[in-house]
Amino acid sequence: MTSPVLPSQGRVRPLGLAQVSITGGFWGSRQAVNATATLAHCESWMERLGWLANFDRVADGTTAPDRPGWSFSDSEVYKLLEALAWESGRTGDPAAEAAIKRLTGRIARAQDPDGYLNTCFGHGTQPPRYSDLEMGHELYNTGHLLQAAVARLRTHGEDDLVRVARRAADHVCRTFGPDGRAGICGHPEIEVGLAEFGRALGEERYVEQARIFLDRRGHGTLRDIPLGRAYFQDDLPIREADVWRGHAVRALYLTAAAVDVAVERGDDELLRAVERQWERSVARRTYITGGMGSRHQDEGFGEDWELPPDRAYCETCAGVASIMVSWRLHLATGDVRYTDLIERTLYNVVAASPSPDGRAFFYANPLHQRAPGRPADPDEVSPRAEAGVRAAWFDVSCCPTNVARTLAGLQGYLATADDDGLQLHQYAPSTVRAELPDGREVAVEVETAYPDGGTVRVRILADGLWTLALRVPAWAAGATLADDGRARPVEPGMATVRRAFRAGEVITLELPMEPRFTWPDPRIDAVRGCVAVERGPEVLCAESHDLPHPGGLDALAIDPRAVPRSVRGAESGEVLVRGRLAAPPDRPWAYSGAPAASAAGIEWFDVPLRPYHSWARRGPSSMRVWLPIEGE
Amino acid sequence: MTSPVLPSQGRVRPLGLAQVSITGGFWGSRQAVNATATLAHCESWMERLGWLANFDRVADGTTAPDRPGWSFSDSEVYKLLEALAWESGRTGDPAAEAAIKRLTGRIARAQDPDGYLNTCFGHGTQPPRYSDLEMGHELYNTGHLLQAAVARLRTHGEDDLVRVARRAADHVCRTFGPDGRAGICGHPEIEVGLAEFGRALGEERYVEQARIFLDRRGHGTLRDIPLGRAYFQDDLPIREADVWRGHAVRALYLTAAAVDVAVERGDDELLRAVERQWERSVARRTYITGGMGSRHQDEGFGEDWELPPDRAYCETCAGVASIMVSWRLHLATGDVRYTDLIERTLYNVVAASPSPDGRAFFYANPLHQRAPGRPADPDEVSPRAEAGVRAAWFDVSCCPTNVARTLAGLQGYLATADDDGLQLHQYAPSTVRAELPDGREVAVEVETAYPDGGTVRVRILADGLWTLALRVPAWAAGATLADDGRARPVEPGMATVRRAFRAGEVITLELPMEPRFTWPDPRIDAVRGCVAVERGPEVLCAESHDLPHPGGLDALAIDPRAVPRSVRGAESGEVLVRGRLAAPPDRPWAYSGAPAASAAGIEWFDVPLRPYHSWARRGPSSMRVWLPIEGE
Repeated sequence: MTSPVLPSQGRVRPLGLAQVSITGGFWGSRQAVNATATLAHCESWMERLGWLANFDRVADGTTAPDRPGWSFSDSEVYKLLEALAWESGRTGDPAAEAAIKRLTGRIARAQDPDGYLNTCFGHGTQPPRYSDLEMGHELYNTGHLLQAAVARLRTHGEDDLVRVARRAADHVCRTFGPDGRAGICGHPEIEVGLAEFGRALGEERYVEQARIFLDRRGHGTLRDIPLGRAYFQDDLPIREADVWRGHAVRALYLTAAAVDVAVERGDDELLRAVERQWERSVARRTYITGGMGSRHQDEGFGEDWELPPDRAYCETCAGVASIMVSWRLHLATGDVRYTDLIERTLYNVVAASPSPDGRAFFYANPLHQRAPGRPADPDEVSPRAEAGVRAAWFDVSCCPTNVARTLAGLQGYLATADDDGLQLHQYAPSTVRAELPDGREVAVEVETAYPDGGTVRVRILADGLWTLALRVPAWAAGATLADDGRARPVEPGMATVRRAFRAGEVITLELPMEPRFTWPDPRIDAVRGCVAVERGPEVLCAESHDLPHPGGLDALAIDPRAVPRSVRGAESGEVLVRGRLAAPPDRPWAYSGAPAASAAGIEWFDVPLRPYHSWARRGPSSMRVWLPIEGE
Repeated sequence: MTSPVLPSQGRVRPLGLAQVSITGGFWGSRQAVNATATLAHCESWMERLGWLANFDRVADGTTAPDRPGWSFSDSEVYKLLEALAWESGRTGDPAAEAAIKRLTGRIARAQDPDGYLNTCFGHGTQPPRYSDLEMGHELYNTGHLLQAAVARLRTHGEDDLVRVARRAADHVCRTFGPDGRAGICGHPEIEVGLAEFGRALGEERYVEQARIFLDRRGHGTLRDIPLGRAYFQDDLPIREADVWRGHAVRALYLTAAAVDVAVERGDDELLRAVERQWERSVARRTYITGGMGSRHQDEGFGEDWELPPDRAYCETCAGVASIMVSWRLHLATGDVRYTDLIERTLYNVVAASPSPDGRAFFYANPLHQRAPGRPADPDEVSPRAEAGVRAAWFDVSCCPTNVARTLAGLQGYLATADDDGLQLHQYAPSTVRAELPDGREVAVEVETAYPDGGTVRVRILADGLWTLALRVPAWAAGATLADDGRARPVEPGMATVRRAFRAGEVITLELPMEPRFTWPDPRIDAVRGCVAVERGPEVLCAESHDLPHPGGLDALAIDPRAVPRSVRGAESGEVLVRGRLAAPPDRPWAYSGAPAASAAGIEWFDVPLRPYHSWARRGPSSMRVWLPIEGE
């Protein structure tokens, strides 16, 4: 099965490239841009910056102290390879296939005879291998190599990349196995790479090595650092933790591996620990966008309820990693809360990152931009993750390749199968087909303008008796399911139809797409007295481009009694709310003995809101998701 | 005049050690603890960590690659020396005098023959001198040396420390003068050191070198760094900037020097630029505590209105530096807004830092602590600036010595003189005497329990016709001034009495000490729907120690219609407000289609509030200054 995650057991089974394809729409166009622009964009930047030549230098024995790139730049090449492998598998694109061979050749030459493969350590005057486990990212890089090899193995079969990865994995097992050095990597990733590579190859010892790394962590195994050991989740054993903390991408990659190991080992204690962490972290440490990471300082989670919109970090990679975790949990449990969060994160984090041309990206995804960024030079590397504008490339450029591999493999998140049928989770124009364990062939075609429209038509492609299950998102109160001309209300969760289907029949899910106010828990101090507006799966935002004067966002107040309404005929997703600009007079001191006077006399007007994922497309802007309520 | 700042001109003149002494009360006890505990505490930690031995190693030619401490550790020794010099001048304490000689001897031995003095660069295998102007802190260290020498020169006269400093200053002028290298230091401080050392010695060229450094900055003189050149104020010339940005201590030390240079040169353009920056930064980027610095990532200012209470950095050193700036501006202009801010910062930032025993310190001063910190080990160096508990020493330990030098010289901020009399700015049991330019002797004794009580009695100590001016803080609406038995209302600003005084007469200022609600500007998003409580100059806070259950602070809501009231007979500053614990039920997702239900049925109770500066004295706690309002 050509899927990034293939557990040996679970409540539902993923479907691969041969089973699911996205044929257009919101995600289809993004997959196409990814294929035609982003993949080459990433390769060209890594060539230009010498991140690819780093492999040649190791092979040629010409490493030098001025090696370009951070210690994790190898991983960007591997993530691009993973994206290329999914793309090649998806479309058979010869350009992708050629790029895979080109990159694999250069990587393979850099592998040491014992399997060690890294361009930053262990050659020439470089520091010795594994001399900086805290921050050196060696095992992290290898983990991404293994994920790339999994993609290649499942879409193509064994080749040089897979053989390189196998030698690298063996080297890791020899070095850090039960009889080896009791070390772990400061950035989790090797664990999720080993677990899946082990599943893909049937190599139990790789899964075991992932388990060893997981259980070795959390005992102060790494040296303390100023940010504290929670930064790399070495503060508490994963089985004991109640919540995610520290660096968000680290926490989430680690958790993804924990699900893999728990499932492979039938380790319910570990699975329950992860579910407990997911529950509290999603309930108390997650933005309305699905974004995770409240702090810039350590790109990390904050305390419970610490969710500042302006300083939200919400790294794109943390969105990708959150989806990795929730997908694994969904496969294990079938619980719809995980696929709900995946939808939210896809539309409001992953989709927000790339520009329409696929050549610029958001790294951080704040929910409130106070001052517009400066226009980015498409020919420059951005030194900063937080600029309020999308950048062509970053000094730390983890996000573009993470977006690329996610979009290239996106069809994998649309649907699953169980013993009696199909479950559709994400709605896009697509076809889904599967063979059930007893040999029944099930197949549907999905037609929808989602998320612009809420109608999802599922056309049956072959006769048969089976169960079709459609996810009704948690926000979709009032949804209906029409089967054979009769519509019935369906509750959030999975709406199922079990009957003998005939080819050509259509089951129609109607999701309510009226825009709606969404209120925060009062314990989220940073957005007290504010309301957000959502429409379908999209979080909306107000942007300075749409306001009468540029500083208007500081003065905007919304009337919560006036229901938000969609603009007919406007570009997709545009919504109006009633608001006014109620800036108080400037004073020499921001604090006073009486509440600010109300802004009587300033006229109400219709404030346009648009999908958050499209903000800053019209040039640098200020923006806010959470809208202050008049009178608060 | 034994004062840290002695401008050659200005609206009012500072008074020195011989003119002002604090005789007890809130600040008297803190000065005493500083003298008897903190000074020795700082020296002992720097001995233990090898920061003092770094000087011996340079002198002995035994510097090694494992040199302990950051590149700025020398400056801590200099700040301690400055504190010791003020302390020795204030009390004649032989222990302080002995420490000065002891430290000076070790420092002097490390000075190179050409005047260069630094333990981190330029010796043995260390990087060459001035090879990392961005982050190397060499000139920063020298600036603190010069400030220490100013203190020594003014309290004692020329000695080895002053001679060492003079050689170091000369070296800086030769190296970075008009014909030298066009560099600046990544951390401003040399400028303020040179300006005052120049004033103290009558060396015009030192002031000129300060001006050169000031005007050289802001043109991209330093290399760019990931945090951007605004981090070290090299993004914009100081004359063009409208607001403080980047690292707060850097911005404020730089600004202090700009006032010095502006005053010495009669450079009104520069002075106006600084006043403009002060105005916007204080109006829009300053916490109610006077604290500055909204971001942990760069210890820096945020955007306008970006003032999160939980992630407030409010570094103690930034409070010290803010006082340095405002004091210089007050001396130049006589404007009471500057001394108002000094009072606010003294009580709510500087006083918050040290523990009652003077052996532990806050580095960051957040206005909301969500989770209690872990108890600090008094024998351990804290690696973190943000721990929710005071620490004995820090890996970056700038704050303890900054508190020490500020407290040792605190009497310098109490009063000024002009041609016709005295101005009293900060109220403490004290004596103030001065000789006016025409020879009149003026002297008063101040008796007060401030800030516990609001009565300030000013007893005239000698007959004479002159003007007594008393600061009426901006918050003190309803204050009265009683002279000769007749009380009259006085407005915030300076309340003056000009007449022929007779020794023994008492003028009494009554400041209203009823606790009061204070409301934030609605543009401060992070505290919307909240109110703070202040009493006199003290900002109050709620602390988990005083609530029925430890998580109570997340659930606290205040009734804004019930006026806060002082507790009679309770420990100083305790105030009660009416509140209740209104925690909403836990939900799996923090965002919902309706506002949270009100917390009907949970009983109201009296919530004790205490001065913010005393929080976490009773052990680790959660705490908040901004209190959510019931029903918001």
